[in-house]
This record gives sequence, C-alpha cells and structure tokens, in this order.
Amino acid sequence: MKRTAFFISDGTGITAETLGNSLLSQFKAIEFERVTLPYIDSVEKAHNAADRINAAAEKSGKPAIVFDTIVNGDIRRIIDSANALKIDIFGAFLAPLEAELQVESSYSVGTSHSSATSSSYIARIDAVNFALDNDDGARTRQYAEADIILVGVSRSGKTPTCLYLAMQFGIKAANYPLTEEDMDDLKIPVSLEKYRHKLFGLTIDPDRLAAIRNERRANSRYASLKQCYHEIDEVEMLYQRENIPFISTTDKSIEEISTRIMVETQLERRLRN
Amino acid sequence: MKRTAFFISDGTGITAETLGNSLLSQFKAIEFERVTLPYIDSVEKAHNAADRINAAAEKSGKPAIVFDTIVNGDIRRIIDSANALKIDIFGAFLAPLEAELQVESSYSVGTSHSSATSSSYIARIDAVNFALDNDDGARTRQYAEADIILVGVSRSGKTPTCLYLAMQFGIKAANYPLTEEDMDDLKIPVSLEKYRHKLFGLTIDPDRLAAIRNERRANSRYASLKQCYHEIDEVEMLYQRENIPFISTTDKSIEEISTRIMVETQLERRLRN
Repeated sequence: MKRTAFFISDGTGITAETLGNSLLSQFKAIEFERVTLPYIDSVEKAHNAADRINAAAEKSGKPAIVFDTIVNGDIRRIIDSANALKIDIFGAFLAPLEAELQVESSYSVGTSHSSATSSSYIARIDAVNFALDNDDGARTRQYAEADIILVGVSRSGKTPTCLYLAMQFGIKAANYPLTEEDMDDLKIPVSLEKYRHKLFGLTIDPDRLAAIRNERRANSRYASLKQCYHEIDEVEMLYQRENIPFISTTDKSIEEISTRIMVETQLERRLRN
Repeated sequence: MKRTAFFISDGTGITAETLGNSLLSQFKAIEFERVTLPYIDSVEKAHNAADRINAAAEKSGKPAIVFDTIVNGDIRRIIDSANALKIDIFGAFLAPLEAELQVESSYSVGTSHSSATSSSYIARIDAVNFALDNDDGARTRQYAEADIILVGVSRSGKTPTCLYLAMQFGIKAANYPLTEEDMDDLKIPVSLEKYRHKLFGLTIDPDRLAAIRNERRANSRYASLKQCYHEIDEVEMLYQRENIPFISTTDKSIEEISTRIMVETQLERRLRN
C-alpha cells in the first residue's frame, strides 16, 4: 500500500522535506511516493497544489500526508482544505517558542521567510572555490589557508566530502591523494609536513573500494582486491604511526562523514544554514 | 538579550538544525547563539550535553531552547532534565502519523535512524563527479549525458549551483561560460547547439557582479561596472532571443537558485535526502 507524501512550502521546501523525510524514515513498513512543491506563494498555486493532493488521495484511497511550512494564511487555508493529514510544522512549534521568548514570530504577524545573507553566500562560495582549487593535490600553496586537509587513497570519498564541508559549513577543505606510487614506502608527503596538524585521513573497506573502483576502471590492477587491500593497509598504518585522526567512509553518507569530521576536529563552522 | 539554541541528535543533527533554524528565523528580534551537538548516542554524551545546556541557561539567566531528534528513551530523559524549552520534533509528529498510517514507527519501538543507501550514495557521487568533470566548459563530450547545462558569464554562480544540484538532487549538471571574447557577437556556442533544449541561463545584477569580480581581481577591466553591464546586457538578450529559460541569482541562496531551476525545468530528482 503506497501513500503519497507532499512537502509544501512558499520557499525552497528544504525544511519541510528534511523534517518530512526524517519522520517518514521512521515508518519502514510503508512505501511513500514523495512530491516536493516549493514556491507555493500564490492562491492559484495553492489551488493547484490542493488539486494534486486530492488526486493522490483519491488514487490511493487514503488521505495524503502533507508536511508544510506555509506562512501566508490564505494559502494555508486552501492547502488545509485538501484531503490529507496535515503536519503543520510552524503551527506546532511557534506557539511554545513565542511563549518562551515572549515575542511574536513573523509567522504570527504574517511576514515570510528570511533569505540568505550576502556574507554567508560569499563565505560559502569562497569555500567551494577553495575546495575546487585544492582538489586532489592540484596545488599545495594555499594550504596555509586551509581549515583541514583530507588525505586518503583514490576513491575513498575525499572530493565530495570537501565539497560538502564547504557547502554546508563554509569550511575550507583541501584534499591530497595518497597515490599508488607512494604505497610501498608511505610517508607524509613533504608538501604536507608543515601542515600535519590539519591532516585528516579517510579510509574505506577494501572490498567496497574495489567495487567503487571497478565502476570506473573495470578489471584494472587499480580496482583489484589485492591492490585495494594493500593500499588500505598502508594508509591505515600511516594514520596510526603518525597520529593522523581518521574515519571510515564505508556505509556512511557524505553528511555523516562530514558531520563526524566536524565533531572530531572541533572545527568551527563559518556559516549557519 | 542573547539566548542559546541547541540542536541535538543521535545522528548528524541536520534535521534538528534545519527545522530549528527555520523556526528561529521567525524571531528576528532575538539573537541566538547556536550549538549543534550531533551523535549524542550514549548516556555519557547525554550528560555532557545536559551540562552544556544548563551552563548556557545559567549564563543567559533564561532557559535554553533545545531542538532534538533523539530516539533512545534513556538519552531523551537526560536531555529532558536540563533547563530548556524542549522542541521534541519526533515526539510531536509521530503520534498523529502513527494514527493515520496505522503502524508503529521505529521511534516508538526504539530503533534508530536509517542511513544512506548505497544506490543513493553512488548516484550522488556520480553526479558530483559529473559536475566537476564538466565544470566551466572543460569538456563538452559528455553533454549527451547531462541533465542540464548551465550557461552564464563568469562569476554568475554556475559552479556552486551545479554542485548543489548534484549533491542535493543527484542531477548531472554541466556548465559552460559565456566568455568575454564572445560578447560582441553572442551566439549559442557551436558545441552547445545540439543540446540547446538542455540549456538554462543564469544572470545577475551587474552591480553585484562587479562587486563579486572585484573581490577576485580588483580594479580590472573584467571587474569594471562598464564591462559587467555590457556582458549582462548581451547574455540576457541572447537568452531572450534564443528562448533559453533563465533566472537571476542576485540575492538568492544556492538552495533557492537550484530549487527554482528544478521547478522551472521539471527535472526529476535522482535522489531523495
């Protein structure tokens, strides 16, 4: 039995979606069709959204589930009229917050969401550019500016982690590959010696690494189990010998890897989302 | 009067943080100190968290605000004992969802969050790699595989938008710069002709563009107001003449730009967060 869940907002819908997905993930027995409807900011769009909700409810023979962060009263009432269980995120929590803080929220007074500030936009773009410029050991002369330098073997997750750290936290993250040639006599590369306090290692289960590498270069030596086991052995020994903190990326999402790195390093975020 | 808000989770804390920040942004009159405590997954960590909450409450002379998505009962009770207004995200919404869906949630039965699936991890990494490989017109031979190709002048936001589309939605986004040399006789570049149905334009307020470019290359011709006005004039005329859909990135966050592009193009997401 499939149910349809809607995430509806007059903005990007990211809050409704993030919360809604977290809640739905607590119901593993049920399969959900998910529909995000961002920028529902007019009466006309609200009627269209309500029509879609009603159509989904009719199709499945059960009310839809609606997670929303709509502020405008006219739009809310239209969405409310549709055949759905409504999870009214702002409605539920703003009243106790108003009571505690002893001020009215802009929800109550009817204004809309805030937008990104210019300073956080620039911090984020700077960090993304830094990650791109300093990807895969391309340069090392900006390492003085880096908040962190990720090291690890090829395909252990360095690049996406650097980009996520930049995008989500505004952290300037460089990364440097520990390559095949270095493997038999693995030391901290000379260009990193000066920045060893910024190093953070990634590791990964060798079988998983081989699977990932095989998608890129099937049946190569690079992707062989033997090679992957060898490389991972060597880097993990290096991390331990040199006291480089490290984390396994196996079975972790990029969010998890990045958040755990933030916790372990106690790096301070440069931006708030 | 500064209040301290905590975002607490046994996972990454992203849900608590996203929802909490949305709610707090409705109270513009109050300044909040924000603390995220992820991976609070043991009684010991819970006691440390409670101590931090109590210290913050004592310092400001007012209870702290706690947004949490803790599942484990023992841990919850420790957090609950601290001096704070508790916004219990799962507690508030899972009961009505359970009633509607007529099953118990894993919250109620005490198991923990789900992790990223392998297929969504791979879709995301593939999309991020695609964005990196196809950044700034570096290659054009993979454009057949692209879901979308962003075009725009230098520093109009193409790269971060492509990366966000990849990271958040698993969308394969290439980008191609409309460069200064082409400006006086601006046409769709030959290498893009075949893919014109995939093109999506970015534009930006020329004054804002000049400010951004000045941070990179101060007082250059490239960053001059005259040049920025000229380039933006030319690209906007091109978009209109060639019926390329486009969006202004001025004063928009990367999330907003990306979400609006998803709405306009009706691209289907390749992953769900």
